Amino acid sequence: MTLDDLRLDIDKIDARILSLLNERMERAILTKKFKTSIEDKPRETALLDKIRRTSHCLVEPNFAGDIYAKILDESKRLQAMNLDTIGFQGEHGAFSEMASKAYSPDNATIPCKEFADVFEGVESGLFSLGIVPVENTLGGLVEPVNAFLINTNLKIIAAINLPVRHCLVAPQGADHRELRLVWSHSQALTQCRNFLLRNHLEPVPYYDTAGAAKAIAENQPKGVAAISSRLAAELYGLDIIKEDIQDSMNNRTRFFVLARSNDQDGGDKCSIVFTAGDKAGSLFAILEVFARAGINLTRIESIPDKPGSYAIFIDLEGSSKDPRVEESLEKVSTMANGFRLLGCYREARMVS
Amino acid sequence: MTLDDLRLDIDKIDARILSLLNERMERAILTKKFKTSIEDKPRETALLDKIRRTSHCLVEPNFAGDIYAKILDESKRLQAMNLDTIGFQGEHGAFSEMASKAYSPDNATIPCKEFADVFEGVESGLFSLGIVPVENTLGGLVEPVNAFLINTNLKIIAAINLPVRHCLVAPQGADHRELRLVWSHSQALTQCRNFLLRNHLEPVPYYDTAGAAKAIAENQPKGVAAISSRLAAELYGLDIIKEDIQDSMNNRTRFFVLARSNDQDGGDKCSIVFTAGDKAGSLFAILEVFARAGINLTRIESIPDKPGSYAIFIDLEGSSKDPRVEESLEKVSTMANGFRLLGCYREARMVS
Repeated sequence: MTLDDLRLDIDKIDARILSLLNERMERAILTKKFKTSIEDKPRETALLDKIRRTSHCLVEPNFAGDIYAKILDESKRLQAMNLDTIGFQGEHGAFSEMASKAYSPDNATIPCKEFADVFEGVESGLFSLGIVPVENTLGGLVEPVNAFLINTNLKIIAAINLPVRHCLVAPQGADHRELRLVWSHSQALTQCRNFLLRNHLEPVPYYDTAGAAKAIAENQPKGVAAISSRLAAELYGLDIIKEDIQDSMNNRTRFFVLARSNDQDGGDKCSIVFTAGDKAGSLFAILEVFARAGINLTRIESIPDKPGSYAIFIDLEGSSKDPRVEESLEKVSTMANGFRLLGCYREARMVS
Repeated sequence: MTLDDLRLDIDKIDARILSLLNERMERAILTKKFKTSIEDKPRETALLDKIRRTSHCLVEPNFAGDIYAKILDESKRLQAMNLDTIGFQGEHGAFSEMASKAYSPDNATIPCKEFADVFEGVESGLFSLGIVPVENTLGGLVEPVNAFLINTNLKIIAAINLPVRHCLVAPQGADHRELRLVWSHSQALTQCRNFLLRNHLEPVPYYDTAGAAKAIAENQPKGVAAISSRLAAELYGLDIIKEDIQDSMNNRTRFFVLARSNDQDGGDKCSIVFTAGDKAGSLFAILEVFARAGINLTRIESIPDKPGSYAIFIDLEGSSKDPRVEESLEKVSTMANGFRLLGCYREARMVS
């Protein structure tokens, strides 16, 4: 054990403390939905008492009390800012979070384990918004998200089309020549296959791209890099060894921003969903409505729903307030089973 | 997700933050051995820069910088106190740590994964002292510790004889009637077998008693209690549901405090070790020396060393500065192979 070893330990501990402080602020912001007032003296007193009582060994009660007084002040300041919260699946630094920042940089992004948590979080009112990936140019449909979209009551209020730019990232000061292993989500590893082969780097599948970046920042394993977003590198203080290491430059993901209602004025794109049964020609008849009205469809996708039936997703150009679109949707809603307008929204195509 | 769920999450996060803050202070105190001065402006500036750079999402750089300025101040204050450090095996709240507090309440106790880390830590000068369990009235010899004692150059400077009083502990506010499972080290579970049977509690082996207490404090699993020391309950803010649940009230562990040298003036007990080969009567001859000098032996233990040879541990009453003891040890040292005086020390028998 050398001085450097001890300082590396301290750096790892600090990374964990910062990450936990952030998680604590997220939880605090979410409590606002359940409270009539941010000030809650009895809870605050009980909390500080508990902190003092359970601070132990080298953490003296007075020091712990001081630190937590600051943490509670900051927590109340953040709650008073009335930030919108937006749930996303993955760890901080996920491409979903980048898309969320592109939508609105000031929202409080809340990581969720599963897509189901994002949908349920918005439905229950825990989150103001949710953001989910719908399709990727290389990987195709994001199956579980589309499955939730069939039945959700949520509305699409925006779409973000984001280029997926993978970065090779490593802890600061790591010797790049010693890198042997690369941790990332299997899809990211596949998308950077040629780069890894050329550089004799061995891919190691990890549950999440941002999770891989977080893990190498917190544990600093020797000879290990990660493939992640630029955002993940920034959040976890990692060096970007090389950006844009994906084999195809045409790697983009499309995200939907979801809310309980769509209070927006305009929009130039509409998404609908309905189920198609086994009646021949029913889908054709619906497509004909749009064709005759001169409405351009930008996406049509069918995914299996209940046995023997399919859910059809259609995206079309135009606003639901445009009489031509309104009339066509009206007509289609009478022809299709389970018809729902998922939303009328603007889509932003991000350049970088 | 309710307000109570969120607050439970926050409590868990706080327990982790406090535990990490303590770990950070421990590491900081250990760095002192490698530094000529506690002040190290370049390191401090680099550290605060890194904190500001990697603080993310809801943790704003200014807030993180403020918190860390306080943490660094406290870290320097603790370093300036020149606390002795004492390594022990286990998590905070282990019985070894209780024994260490009985030896001297002001030492900084440093948890180690393995007994080897305790020995190596003291040998290398990383820790001022180490504390290890040697024998237990019910479990007998602590085999790995005695194996290290055969070859170590460390000196025993004190012995602590501690009653092992097991407590059933649970998170504060947990419904005691709902408890079904009890986590603890298998030895502790065995020592409380009748209590668990009487109360229809299912024992679940865990790697460590204090580790079990820490885990239930941090994760608050439903219906789960732990068996641990009173100290562990205090450190992790757990309720003691019942104390002294061990089946035998004669459960005691004896610990040695180890240092690189024994600078102490006195002592009323000596420990020696030597190897006994296959020469008949050699051990008998050694015992005869002590018997003739009227020296009372309080422990004699043989443990296998290299193939065909045994290490013999003998504890005897008297100070190595008493001419009678000095003379006998002198004589024995010429008769036995690998003779070493492990130390001359005082033994404290704790009542509770």
